[in-house]
Amino acid sequence: MGKHLTTRAEDYSKWYNELVVKADLAQNSGVRGSMVIKPYGFAIWERIQADLDRRFKETGHMNAYFPLFIPKSYFSKEASHVDGFAKECAVVTHYRLKNDPDGNGVIVDPAAKLEEELIVRPTSETIIWDTYRDWIQSYRDLPILVNQWANVVRWEMRTRLFLRTAEFLWQEGHTAHATKEEAIQEAETMLDVYASFVEEIMAIPVLRGIKTEGERFAGALETYCIEALMQDGKALQAGTSHFLGQNFAKAFDVKFQTKEGTQEYVWATSWGVSTRLMGALIMTHSDDNGLVLPPKLAPYQVVIVPIYKGQEQLDAISEVANDLVQQLRAVGVTVKYDDRDTQKPGWKFNQYELQGVPLRIAIGPKDLEKGSVELARRDTLTKQFVSQSDVATVIPALLDEIQNSLFEKALKFREEHTHVANSWEEFETLIKSNAGFVHAHWDGTTETEDKIKDLTKATIRCIPLNNNEEEGTCVLTGKPSKQRVVFARAY
Amino acid sequence: MGKHLTTRAEDYSKWYNELVVKADLAQNSGVRGSMVIKPYGFAIWERIQADLDRRFKETGHMNAYFPLFIPKSYFSKEASHVDGFAKECAVVTHYRLKNDPDGNGVIVDPAAKLEEELIVRPTSETIIWDTYRDWIQSYRDLPILVNQWANVVRWEMRTRLFLRTAEFLWQEGHTAHATKEEAIQEAETMLDVYASFVEEIMAIPVLRGIKTEGERFAGALETYCIEALMQDGKALQAGTSHFLGQNFAKAFDVKFQTKEGTQEYVWATSWGVSTRLMGALIMTHSDDNGLVLPPKLAPYQVVIVPIYKGQEQLDAISEVANDLVQQLRAVGVTVKYDDRDTQKPGWKFNQYELQGVPLRIAIGPKDLEKGSVELARRDTLTKQFVSQSDVATVIPALLDEIQNSLFEKALKFREEHTHVANSWEEFETLIKSNAGFVHAHWDGTTETEDKIKDLTKATIRCIPLNNNEEEGTCVLTGKPSKQRVVFARAY
Repeated sequence: MGKHLTTRAEDYSKWYNELVVKADLAQNSGVRGSMVIKPYGFAIWERIQADLDRRFKETGHMNAYFPLFIPKSYFSKEASHVDGFAKECAVVTHYRLKNDPDGNGVIVDPAAKLEEELIVRPTSETIIWDTYRDWIQSYRDLPILVNQWANVVRWEMRTRLFLRTAEFLWQEGHTAHATKEEAIQEAETMLDVYASFVEEIMAIPVLRGIKTEGERFAGALETYCIEALMQDGKALQAGTSHFLGQNFAKAFDVKFQTKEGTQEYVWATSWGVSTRLMGALIMTHSDDNGLVLPPKLAPYQVVIVPIYKGQEQLDAISEVANDLVQQLRAVGVTVKYDDRDTQKPGWKFNQYELQGVPLRIAIGPKDLEKGSVELARRDTLTKQFVSQSDVATVIPALLDEIQNSLFEKALKFREEHTHVANSWEEFETLIKSNAGFVHAHWDGTTETEDKIKDLTKATIRCIPLNNNEEEGTCVLTGKPSKQRVVFARAY
Repeated sequence: MGKHLTTRAEDYSKWYNELVVKADLAQNSGVRGSMVIKPYGFAIWERIQADLDRRFKETGHMNAYFPLFIPKSYFSKEASHVDGFAKECAVVTHYRLKNDPDGNGVIVDPAAKLEEELIVRPTSETIIWDTYRDWIQSYRDLPILVNQWANVVRWEMRTRLFLRTAEFLWQEGHTAHATKEEAIQEAETMLDVYASFVEEIMAIPVLRGIKTEGERFAGALETYCIEALMQDGKALQAGTSHFLGQNFAKAFDVKFQTKEGTQEYVWATSWGVSTRLMGALIMTHSDDNGLVLPPKLAPYQVVIVPIYKGQEQLDAISEVANDLVQQLRAVGVTVKYDDRDTQKPGWKFNQYELQGVPLRIAIGPKDLEKGSVELARRDTLTKQFVSQSDVATVIPALLDEIQNSLFEKALKFREEHTHVANSWEEFETLIKSNAGFVHAHWDGTTETEDKIKDLTKATIRCIPLNNNEEEGTCVLTGKPSKQRVVFARAY
């Protein structure tokens, strides 16, 4: 605390890492690639969870819980799925430790070797569809609309706090339907749920689209996605929703009897967002002074800091502060009064700025005389004096304004960082300068997509939903193309 | 569905297993010892979580998240801790699968062996105290009051749904304090939080006490516990709170600078409850017809079932039902109107009885004529007719009555199944007939405790808090004793 951050201009990546740690969001742990989510960071994640969970329930879903461990053989049942995840699996092979007979502490007991290895879930389609076989006999049992909040493990070699960690927290929806149309509708509905949440609550504008074949989830027929743009011009995939067709139903033999008495395979979707959203949140709004939080996700929206000398002044200030706390809570504002005597006001100001608290109220002896408070706004770093009697009306309106302003600012940034490229030269220049989203024609082949990635590190982030049809030629190969797709370098 | 349960008198254990599955609470999975918590069961667990989480936050705690994997070496740092958990650990040894060169699907890639094995957390003291070393430098950083909601794994050989599973869900509080007194106070406060929750929300009366040395948590100086009595006369430990002294601070070198400038080791507590509480809930209140739920934990407190022939009748009933739904929701009652045409009323009645919905409303054509509904109470299986205009006032009061009545019934059961034994013969007879809690003198040695366990399978459930001092002689050895302790066979 109290130290300055590296600026974004100096070193964006270093700025991000320092901010995550100094704002008390997360830190690396002693376990390779696994992070500790600190209380303040977790409080933000809880707000993300609570709002998403409400939206899932409003759209008819219930939560459930499936095993952490997946037998290796389950994994092999869906061919593209195992290809997609086999290279990054944590594998449990034994179930006991014992004292080393040579006195070197504890060792793995070789006698406690599992007959079949267990994979720590990287995603739960296989174990869930193995269970759905029990749940589904008839059309009466459909649809199944289930979500799970869980930890998953993907053994990433290069990790970054929130953005890519070996273990992360997420939710995974897994639904089962009688018809293809209904499953596609579900996948699209959940994409909308994600997009609304991310825009309304996180104040992050997103593109909605579908992934190319090469970027699809392992086992999906279609992957829908929302894509956000970070301040360094790189894209971040903020959520995905997959139409899985009958792939998992066939792999796990899940059939149902239709109203007409025939037996058919069940149609599936899955969809998820993860603690990666915390990375998107940080990189969209924050500045060189630290985190900037949209009021709807702030663990406390207002902090009150007393500025005083001696107990008598503190008592007088506390009386006003506690009254404001009551008034603000009554109008639904979350507020913290920080009267700790172990830290000085300057230290507190710095801490709450780093932690992105949307509004800070300072009250000193002069404010008592004048019946006012000093109100500082985190996103604009502006200050104003407000009469104590106006605080409970001014603040809710100001919080709304901040929420909207953050979204508008991010939207403007995205618009200014969205370009059209009509030649390879234009394309390469834009991508190599991290200019943001680049709309360009592509010939529709995975080969070209891969080549572009090799040459520029850019990937096709999505083919936007309701994309304009437009005749053109692929920026790389010059072959005919019917639409522009969105390229960017990405996290 | 629709099938009768084995009765408790016939086979208590079979009754339990059947009920858990038929009431849609949980089921065994394809993964040895791991359960699937089904949506209805999970909805109950969510209510448990929400209420506990609120109580934790009201007592100043924040949530955080620590890694699932713990390096083997961390485990060895606290000697009694590793002894307690080494024999039941799932061990990750590799981080990749690959295609078998012999074409037998996927195999563990021997080249991807971890340098140090990782233990899937059975509890998180070690990884958390390794992290607290970073968080704590000064008295200003204390206390740390953190809780984690997580999955943990203990490789049990004999498993039972909710009661003992290889993987289970729980919360684990881990706090750090400047003084011994404050840590003890915290451990006692959290025991009170657990006891109030279990009694007020789950309607289960509990004994509060401390564990004997032999039954203490591995690494604790004192283990506080709450103990409940099941309908078969066996005890169930419903929650524990541990005073850990400075054991983990010393093992992980966590010191702080006091106000006076000296360096001291930090004092610790940990406390937890788990999905085991679901087992306690089921076995305390349920009957031969299925689950009985306290209204405060019911996913829906009221279900409305229409009884009709033809669309016209259904429409007329639905109008009344939807109005009642609105009225009940307005007074804070959770209610479901089940107008599915895929199932008959009898099937629905049976399902909701099995699932323990506290109140069932049936509305048929005659009820429309009379302006009434039929109201059936799950706990007493009694029915009454209520005027439609009274529903919204009758039901909230009735739900309170059910909540209280379940607690009183369980308390009466416990009182009737609490005995005093003054001789070995009395003791053995009571224990062997699963008579419930048996208060008996004990000479205070682990040796005698173990011997009693060998002879009768009874363990000392607790030494009650504020226990009466009473001179006596140990039921087994005849040696002098200063107090009675509570024995029972236990889950």
